[in-house]
Order: sequence, then structure tokens, then C-alpha cells
Amino acid sequence: MKLTFSPASPFARKVRICAIELELIDRIELVPTAVAPGTPNEQYAHDINPLRKLPVLILDDGSAIADSLVICEYLDDLAGGGKLMPLNGPERWKVKTEHSLLQGMLDAMLLCRYERLLRPKSKSWDVWFDDQWDRAWQGFARFNASPDVLARPLDITQIALACALGYADFRFPDQDWRKAFPKLAAFNRTMLKRPSVKISVPPKA
Amino acid sequence: MKLTFSPASPFARKVRICAIELELIDRIELVPTAVAPGTPNEQYAHDINPLRKLPVLILDDGSAIADSLVICEYLDDLAGGGKLMPLNGPERWKVKTEHSLLQGMLDAMLLCRYERLLRPKSKSWDVWFDDQWDRAWQGFARFNASPDVLARPLDITQIALACALGYADFRFPDQDWRKAFPKLAAFNRTMLKRPSVKISVPPKA
Repeated sequence: MKLTFSPASPFARKVRICAIELELIDRIELVPTAVAPGTPNEQYAHDINPLRKLPVLILDDGSAIADSLVICEYLDDLAGGGKLMPLNGPERWKVKTEHSLLQGMLDAMLLCRYERLLRPKSKSWDVWFDDQWDRAWQGFARFNASPDVLARPLDITQIALACALGYADFRFPDQDWRKAFPKLAAFNRTMLKRPSVKISVPPKA
Repeated sequence: MKLTFSPASPFARKVRICAIELELIDRIELVPTAVAPGTPNEQYAHDINPLRKLPVLILDDGSAIADSLVICEYLDDLAGGGKLMPLNGPERWKVKTEHSLLQGMLDAMLLCRYERLLRPKSKSWDVWFDDQWDRAWQGFARFNASPDVLARPLDITQIALACALGYADFRFPDQDWRKAFPKLAAFNRTMLKRPSVKISVPPKA
């Protein structure tokens, strides 16, 4: 299998961590891929993903799987099922809802990044930045107040949360989430003891 | 159950159509909810969803389920499972990947809407609008070239596609997708024969 990949993408990082934890990483070739809003990438749009987003998992028969959650679900299934997300019952919907929140927090942080660094300065609108940042921040607050989430055995929520915190460090080092959310800081330290999480920390910006 | 709802939201529409098709709509109270970027909605953020997005399904025990796909999966499960999305096999990943594409297309169209109508004119950046619109357009092109998707029995992909086309009509009536994508136009006419799809068409903008 091949995975369109960038070390800067928190979504690709989540898939990579899942693949390592599920012991499937040796079956996946990471294919370095560059995508950015405003940069046409017609071949990628046509052949792989009209959204021009990564990661996409390309199976050996040529079929493609996206987005990052669907890839993680596919890998979990391939590893036997129920390893990183519950297969059924109320726990399944709880974890999926937590993951949706984290996905939205990451989307919001990416919009913040584009607002500050991609868009011309004269077109940058603080109301938008503040609104999107607040979504991520309120999400972190929710998880900081959820000791059960932070303490249970490894799952997709915890992996996505580590990726969201890592992305905040990577792109917004001036925002001191550790001070605001000490329980997340402790959680993050624990997560970084895992080789999968440590090896995938984004490079210095 | 309660669903935070707006008739203008294509994501809420998708859930509503699924609930009607699964014969679960009588068990769901639609709760009118207003959310918009830049408008603080602290109670909603705190009590329901830190992302301030809808729809959220609130179960009778008070637990919340989000986002729209997870709600649709939950409802499908409640209705016996495998009704609107395959439970396993390659078809499951194909449909989930198609749905992810449609979710991304809707996200892109909402960003276009915000770029043109929410953001002050002086802060509007055509490069961004064009890039996001192109994602939706390329996605439509992909589906227009997928006769198998358009012709098979009703599923979550077709419902999401009808919602994406309806949203294009609702917010971007000047973009003539019917001319560019005649197969989608025929598909849309067929979908509109379903009471679930017809009743949920967004009101005139």
C-alpha cells in the first residue's frame, strides 16, 4: 500500500501513528506529497483526490481510501478490528464523536494557519482567525476536563489529540496551551513516550 | 432524540434525509439552531459542541453524537445496520471514501460562501475562493463520470451528493453545474422524486 504523506500534516501523522501501533507500517510506503491551497496540482486532483488533500491510502489494486479517519478505520479492520476504536455499543459513538471534534479542531487550526501565512496580509481578517482559534481552544478545554479520555488505553481519540497538540506546537508555538491545560500537558508527555508518537513529531517549522 | 438543525445546513439536511429513509424521523425532534463563524455562541459551544457546528444528535440520556456522518452511521445502526452504507468489504471503504469527498466538497463550498458573504469585501481573496470552488467542481466532475455511483440503490453517497448539489443551487445559483454535468442533473431529478429529498430542499436564499 502507498500513503500520500507529508511530515507537516497532522492528518497524515495520525494515520502513521495508527499504522505503527497496529503493526502495519511495514506494509505502507510513505509517498512524499506537497499540497497547498492556491497551488494547482492537477495530476493529484485527477488521479488521487479532487480535494487535493492528503493523506490518501492507495491499495495494491489501485483503489484509494480517504480521508484520514476512513484510512485509520480501514487499517484497524485490517488488523483484526476493534484495536483503536470500539466496534459497537455506546463507546463506539462516544469515541467517534470525540474524533469528529478533534478533526474539526485540526481543520480550524489549519484555517488559522492559512489566514496568517498563506493569505496576503491585507486580506487577513482577525475575526476569522479568532473564531477558528477559539474552536480549537474550546475543544482542548473540553478534553482537558475529560480525565477518562486521557487515562484509558490507547485509542484513535488519544492519537488524534496528540496530533492536534503537536500541530499547535508546530504552527502556533506562541499559544501556550500547556499553561492553560496542564492535564493535556501531562497527557502529551505520556504520549511522547511511545515511539510511534515520538518518531512522527513534525520537523521544526 | 433531538437534532440541532437549520434548514440551510446541507449537513443537517443529510441527516434529516437519512432519518426519513430509515423511518426514524418520528423519533427525532428538530431543534432550530443558529450558528455562524464570528458569532459567539458560548452556551452551544459549552453544552453541545465546542466547534459551534450543527447538526448534533442528542440522545435521551443526554449524550451527544457528531458530526453528520457519525449521526448517519448511528441512525443506520439503530435501523438494523447496512441500510445506507455497506457494513463491510471493499464496498464499505469505497462508499466511505466517496462520502469523505462529498464532505470535503461541502466544506469547500461553505468556505466559498464565507469568503464572499461573511468576510468584509476588502478582505475577500479571489485565489482562496477559486481554489475552494475548484475542489467542489472537480468533485462533481468525478461523480459525473461515475455512472455506477449514480445508478445503484439509495445510499449515503447519493444522499450526500444530492445535498451538495442542492447547496450549490441554494448558495451559488450563478454556477451552472447542470450544464457542465448533465449526468448529475439527471441524477438530481431522480433524487428529487423522493419525498425525503424534496421536503428538505433549502428555502429560497
